[in-house]
Amino acid sequence: MRFRATVAYDGTSYQGWQRQREGVPTVQAAVEQALRTIANRPVGVQAAGRTDSGVHATGQVIAFDLAWRHEINNLQRAINANLPLDVAVEDVAVAPVGFHPRFDAHSRTYEYVIDNRPVRHPLHSRYAWHVARPLDVDRMNRAAELLVGSHDFATFGQPPQGTVTVRRLYRAQWAQQGSRLRFTIEANAFLFRMVRSLVGSLRLVGDGRWTVDAFSAALAAADRTYAGKTAPPQGLTLVAVRYE
Amino acid sequence: MRFRATVAYDGTSYQGWQRQREGVPTVQAAVEQALRTIANRPVGVQAAGRTDSGVHATGQVIAFDLAWRHEINNLQRAINANLPLDVAVEDVAVAPVGFHPRFDAHSRTYEYVIDNRPVRHPLHSRYAWHVARPLDVDRMNRAAELLVGSHDFATFGQPPQGTVTVRRLYRAQWAQQGSRLRFTIEANAFLFRMVRSLVGSLRLVGDGRWTVDAFSAALAAADRTYAGKTAPPQGLTLVAVRYE
Repeated sequence: MRFRATVAYDGTSYQGWQRQREGVPTVQAAVEQALRTIANRPVGVQAAGRTDSGVHATGQVIAFDLAWRHEINNLQRAINANLPLDVAVEDVAVAPVGFHPRFDAHSRTYEYVIDNRPVRHPLHSRYAWHVARPLDVDRMNRAAELLVGSHDFATFGQPPQGTVTVRRLYRAQWAQQGSRLRFTIEANAFLFRMVRSLVGSLRLVGDGRWTVDAFSAALAAADRTYAGKTAPPQGLTLVAVRYE
Repeated sequence: MRFRATVAYDGTSYQGWQRQREGVPTVQAAVEQALRTIANRPVGVQAAGRTDSGVHATGQVIAFDLAWRHEINNLQRAINANLPLDVAVEDVAVAPVGFHPRFDAHSRTYEYVIDNRPVRHPLHSRYAWHVARPLDVDRMNRAAELLVGSHDFATFGQPPQGTVTVRRLYRAQWAQQGSRLRFTIEANAFLFRMVRSLVGSLRLVGDGRWTVDAFSAALAAADRTYAGKTAPPQGLTLVAVRYE
C-alpha cells in the first residue's frame, strides 16, 4: 500500500534531507531506518523537497510503499517511536497508487526568518539569521514583489538537473513581528540554494547597500555572479507543499 | 564601577545558572569567564534568579564590579565576543553602588510553554513541553487564578534557604496561540522548582485528572506530597525581573 506523510524536522544535526553514503546523518536515512525497523525490510522514501544541510521543515511531504495491516494511527505512532526526537511524522494518509511527492507537487512554500536586532539572541539563533544592521522591510518588499511571476532565476541558484532555470513564483513577501522578519516564498519549484540566495540579496536591499533597481538588474542578468552572499541555512524552513 | 546587565541564554547545555565545581558547565561560570578575560582578573557576578538546569532566560539580570574606561557599548560587545553563542548580554548599564540584582528585585516573571498537540513537533521541543492529551485552558486558568495573592506555596516547592514558604503572586495566567499554551507567572520570589511544579499540577487540571477544587485543596495543604509531577525544564524561561 502507498502512504503519504508530512514530516517535520530540526535540520541542525543533519546533512540535509537526501541520503548520502553510509554514516552521514541525513533526514532521509533516519526516516528510512525507522520504516525499515517497522517493515523488517528496506523501504525507500521519496520527498517533495531536498532540503540542504541545516535547513528545517515543518511541512515536508514524503511517500513510501509498505504492507500495513493495522490502523493507520498506529503506523504513525510506530514511525515516531523509531525516529530520533528531532524528526517527527505529523500525519500519515493512504496515497493513490503512483503518487510521487516531488513530481506531483503544485508548489512548495518556504519561510526564512531574520532576527534583526543589535545583539544576537540565544533563543532565536537556532532557527533564524541574526542581522545586526537595521533592515528596511518596505524596501525589501518592493524588491521581493519583482520576483512574482515566471522568471529566469539563474542569478539566484543552480538547477538541480538539466539547465532550465525558469521558475514560477506565486508569492514572495516579508512580514515583521518585532525584531523578527519572516520571508514567505512560494513557487512551483526552486533552484538549489535559491531561497537563501534571494534572502542574502534582499538583505542588501534592506540595509541600503543595494537599491531596488540594483536588485532588479541582478535578477535580469540571469548570472550567478550578480547574487549577494547566500544567507545561512538555519533561518530556512520548508513549511508546505501543495498538490492539486 | 558597578554594572547591571540583562542576560539571555539557551539553558539546554548548562547545569543551571549557579556556578558549581570546576568543569561543570553553568551560565554563571561562562559569564564570569568572559568578564575575567576582559578584566584580566576574577570578576564575581550576582544574578536575580538561580535558574535550574536546562531552564532558559531572556531577562536574567546580573551585576558585577569592573574597571572600564571605554564606552559602555564597547563593554557589551567585548562581553558578547567572549561568551559562547548560547549566552548573550542584551544590555549593559551603570548601576548604583551596592545594587544587588537578587535582593533589590521587586518581582520575577517566568514563562512556561506547553506544546499541546497529538504529535511532538521537532522545532518546538527545545523550548516547550510536549503534552499530547488535549488541555482545557479555561479550567487551567480557573485554577491559576487561585494562586494570585500571598500564599504558603509549600506544596509546590522548597525554600532556597530558611523555612519561609510564603510568596506573593502578582500574576498567573495561561494564554493560547494555536497549539502553544503559554503560562505567565509573576511573583516577588519563587521557591525551588515552584513554576515547574505548578505547571505539572495545572496540567492535571487541564487534562481532567484533577478538578479545580482538588488543585485548591493541594495548595491549601501546604504539603509537597500533594503536588503533581514536576514539569520538565525546557519549557521554562525567566523573562523579566522588575525593580522599583
